Amino acid sequence: MRIQPKNRERLVDAAIGRIPCDLVIRNAQVVNVFTGEVYDADVGICEGFIAHVQCDPDKTNRPEAPLEGVKEYDAKGAFLTPGFVDAHIHIESTMMTPRYFAKAVIPHGTTTVITDPHEIGNVFGVKGVRYMHECSEDLPMRQLILAPSCVPSLPGKENGGASFGVEEISELFKLPRVAGLAEVMDYYGVMNNAPRMVSLVGHCLDEEKFAQGHAFCIYGRELSAYACGGPMSDHECISAQDARDRVRVGINVDARESSISQDIDDIIRGVKDFRYTDLVTFATDDTESDDILKRGHENYIANKAIRAGFDPIDAIKVATINAAREAGIKGIGAVAPGYTADLALFDSLTNLEPKAVFYGGELVAEDGKLLAVIEDKDYEIEGINSVSIPVPAPEKLMIAAPADRTSARCNIIVFDPNKGFMTDFGTADIPVKDGFLDISGDPSLKYAAVINRYGTGTIGQAIVKDYGIREGAVASTVAHDCHNIVVIYDKPENAVTAIARLKENAGGYVSVRDGEILAEMKLPVAGLMSNTPIETIAAQSQRLKASLETLGMTGVAFPLFNMAILPLPVVPVARLTDLGMINAITQEFLPIIAE
Amino acid sequence: MRIQPKNRERLVDAAIGRIPCDLVIRNAQVVNVFTGEVYDADVGICEGFIAHVQCDPDKTNRPEAPLEGVKEYDAKGAFLTPGFVDAHIHIESTMMTPRYFAKAVIPHGTTTVITDPHEIGNVFGVKGVRYMHECSEDLPMRQLILAPSCVPSLPGKENGGASFGVEEISELFKLPRVAGLAEVMDYYGVMNNAPRMVSLVGHCLDEEKFAQGHAFCIYGRELSAYACGGPMSDHECISAQDARDRVRVGINVDARESSISQDIDDIIRGVKDFRYTDLVTFATDDTESDDILKRGHENYIANKAIRAGFDPIDAIKVATINAAREAGIKGIGAVAPGYTADLALFDSLTNLEPKAVFYGGELVAEDGKLLAVIEDKDYEIEGINSVSIPVPAPEKLMIAAPADRTSARCNIIVFDPNKGFMTDFGTADIPVKDGFLDISGDPSLKYAAVINRYGTGTIGQAIVKDYGIREGAVASTVAHDCHNIVVIYDKPENAVTAIARLKENAGGYVSVRDGEILAEMKLPVAGLMSNTPIETIAAQSQRLKASLETLGMTGVAFPLFNMAILPLPVVPVARLTDLGMINAITQEFLPIIAE
Repeated sequence: MRIQPKNRERLVDAAIGRIPCDLVIRNAQVVNVFTGEVYDADVGICEGFIAHVQCDPDKTNRPEAPLEGVKEYDAKGAFLTPGFVDAHIHIESTMMTPRYFAKAVIPHGTTTVITDPHEIGNVFGVKGVRYMHECSEDLPMRQLILAPSCVPSLPGKENGGASFGVEEISELFKLPRVAGLAEVMDYYGVMNNAPRMVSLVGHCLDEEKFAQGHAFCIYGRELSAYACGGPMSDHECISAQDARDRVRVGINVDARESSISQDIDDIIRGVKDFRYTDLVTFATDDTESDDILKRGHENYIANKAIRAGFDPIDAIKVATINAAREAGIKGIGAVAPGYTADLALFDSLTNLEPKAVFYGGELVAEDGKLLAVIEDKDYEIEGINSVSIPVPAPEKLMIAAPADRTSARCNIIVFDPNKGFMTDFGTADIPVKDGFLDISGDPSLKYAAVINRYGTGTIGQAIVKDYGIREGAVASTVAHDCHNIVVIYDKPENAVTAIARLKENAGGYVSVRDGEILAEMKLPVAGLMSNTPIETIAAQSQRLKASLETLGMTGVAFPLFNMAILPLPVVPVARLTDLGMINAITQEFLPIIAE
Repeated sequence: MRIQPKNRERLVDAAIGRIPCDLVIRNAQVVNVFTGEVYDADVGICEGFIAHVQCDPDKTNRPEAPLEGVKEYDAKGAFLTPGFVDAHIHIESTMMTPRYFAKAVIPHGTTTVITDPHEIGNVFGVKGVRYMHECSEDLPMRQLILAPSCVPSLPGKENGGASFGVEEISELFKLPRVAGLAEVMDYYGVMNNAPRMVSLVGHCLDEEKFAQGHAFCIYGRELSAYACGGPMSDHECISAQDARDRVRVGINVDARESSISQDIDDIIRGVKDFRYTDLVTFATDDTESDDILKRGHENYIANKAIRAGFDPIDAIKVATINAAREAGIKGIGAVAPGYTADLALFDSLTNLEPKAVFYGGELVAEDGKLLAVIEDKDYEIEGINSVSIPVPAPEKLMIAAPADRTSARCNIIVFDPNKGFMTDFGTADIPVKDGFLDISGDPSLKYAAVINRYGTGTIGQAIVKDYGIREGAVASTVAHDCHNIVVIYDKPENAVTAIARLKENAGGYVSVRDGEILAEMKLPVAGLMSNTPIETIAAQSQRLKASLETLGMTGVAFPLFNMAILPLPVVPVARLTDLGMINAITQEFLPIIAE
């Protein structure tokens, strides 16, 4: 994909001086990602692109016509870098719509994101991805979209709102801002030539598009097989060794620092002494709004990388041109003629908090404040309540057991506070009362259900241990990746109250105790996102998390995420989809009653 | 463009170990262009691509299944690098057809060239480019082709065999091995938004192809204007400053070392201390067969760069993956899974003479000897005598002058031994005899003519000073870029003899004294190339150059080239096309008789 000026001839005219530039940024110290230099320069901009960088770092004193601009901006000696390019993000995970997401991240210097809209893809299919494309069209930042490769994540093991094959991907590839195939999560499929992966990745490569990868914890021959299969990147590195392995085989490392995974320190330790770091980029992946509010966005990762010993110039290169090159996006990521004037100004190169941000040559943020106007617009999808199923009766949320027994040996899902969202299977003898399992005697146990919200009527049930809440219920329509309704509860009545409220809110999160709503996040767009400012959604998130503490969940790093990821059948080990409990390693379903 | 395996699933199978590899290269020290490391490894190859690199540079001792191969090759501890990629070449300038060119360069480790066939394009048009594409199809090397952007180099100022517009370029872009637009030489046109350049470069960028540049001696705002216009590279750097200027603005520097231009030392001095050298590649451009025979090919440039202080690992990266990335060619240029098994083995990293060369996993050369069989094939174009015009009568090669004068003040073209092919205009008072200019009294003067060979009947004439020969005639059908017939001569009769012999030989070079042929090169394919081994054509070249010494031309570095470039109206200053003398700077024609 090439980002081009609408009128290239006018840009050429401005470069050579036949017409004045639209804007000249004076007195900047330009960071050159092609040479690694920093030098004094004035930067002329026309048509939203850089026309000329007037500088003389070699002190040649060659004559040059003065650079004239209709407008001028005094950088006052600050460092001018390309705007940051986030190599891998799911905007839905910020729980803001693309337009509110833009308002939140532009002041941090992020001018381009490469986003995988597979959450809304699972809910609304192609229509959902088209919505993400349409509503990001006129933004003062660039949201490039990848066509989700794994909708659903594991066909046949869960029911979502859509299923993407070559036909859907091919349709999405025709959209102008779709740059390739989004994270190819089914690495088992790639390594084993599974037909769906062979056809999707093959189609992507034949179309000469970017095939984004996801290669969790594989190495050696498996990693080579994955690379041979076609995907070109990985944002799942969780160790220095992971990062070193991947760069060596030519897989781009999208070094991630998300709400859940803090991997930068290890990755930088792994790669910083390599002679080349061409294949390293930064990715925010799943980062929630309260974290963006607290720490920043891509600039936070760059800062952390610098603190971990990465050279600041390398960090800026990694955060800009490297990400553009990885995804095959030409024309962004450098302060150089012919490149988009997506720029950030910093007082320090070791503390990347932008004092100004430009997008397409327009000043869009200054001193952390958004200056660009992003208007609310109406989109059909935003008016659809995607939680349209009937609220189940309480009996449906009980788990039947042989009435002639007093207890049953059950397979259960075990959380471990030290492992976060990683779960295991265990067994427990659960009392049977009136033909139903009865967990009331053991506060470490809770019921869990995943309720299909796309009309199949399927409900997967389980008993979970040590999720964390002592009482009450928590429910959500954010339930990766199919985004059915997930609920963890002490009593069916509390679950029903929570689900009814989710339906009323058209999605989000709800916590309940004794039939009363404790807190909630309203995510009415696809049950995933909200058209509200980051401060609003972050405050809702904080209140919700506080309510979980009230329910007894203390000292858990990611209380919401641990539940939201419970249904994802590709994350080890014990998962629950709308079709039942499943072992993510063996991909086999387990019965609740073991014997 | 992505170079892909025919059967990717089989490659994946070999990578993970479900089937043995086709070939395993054991005991190599792999040069990793992604990390800059060198480490011990065995390399498994399948389907012509690298399936797996078995290594453990971090001494992790992780278990791994043994790497099995149907065939094995013992590298005996030698350094294994990717095969070299020549970023910019005109194969025609080697005077060998693509198939004989391949025989000559493969043993030097060149496995891919990005060639601009604009010489044959000027002679035979699209048909000529198609011939280059067709006859390189089944070679044990990769010849990627760019669609010539400047056929002819200066429309309206010369008549060639073809004229390329968007229609022709678009037709060529459909060929599978055409990677983009070849060197956009008309940098004045680009900087000034000339319609032909705007449409051709615009078409190339819209098609997301590579636009190769050519930005001779421009800097500052002109260089920015050129970059804004779209071209992405330049192989015309002749100084350290040129190279630094270009890398800074994001223009790839194809560091050239050709028969004519030795630029490597300066360029390396310019770029070697930059933190990044992502934008540097190597290019052989116009390199003649005797030079290839004497010194090697791309490996010669890499060696020279290393001697100039470039790190050998940087030199290898520049010679491989950098060139592939510049032109947007994916899947070549690295020893990594999923990349083509185009490889070279070296005993030393500071003296890059390959002991073995692999192409697509096949051993194609060893110890400087070609092992691959490249058969002669019949191509229609090779049977066409492109010198089909009538031999002009001697009178046509005399220059008329007012019969009533005894002398005339003339504009002449002046060669300077210190300036090589760069010429200037001068004036001289030339005697007039019987109504014609008579140079017989001044041995420093010679007649020159450029005779259209495409049927227009046009002949451009001039008087040249200090070309070098004292007597006789030299003629050639290699006459950039239109490749009309160029002849420099003392007497019309000698010119006629030379032209007649060129016609008989279907093209090439001829030297003549007193009506006798002294020496000749036979280039019957388009009047530019020969289907003969490099030793044959190099020997012809040597004999021809010796014959020019016999004619008095001593101490001239490039006697043939100086004449062959005389008709090129984009090289400063004084040029001669079939339409007459032209100033390459002002692009204005000059009359022979000044007053």
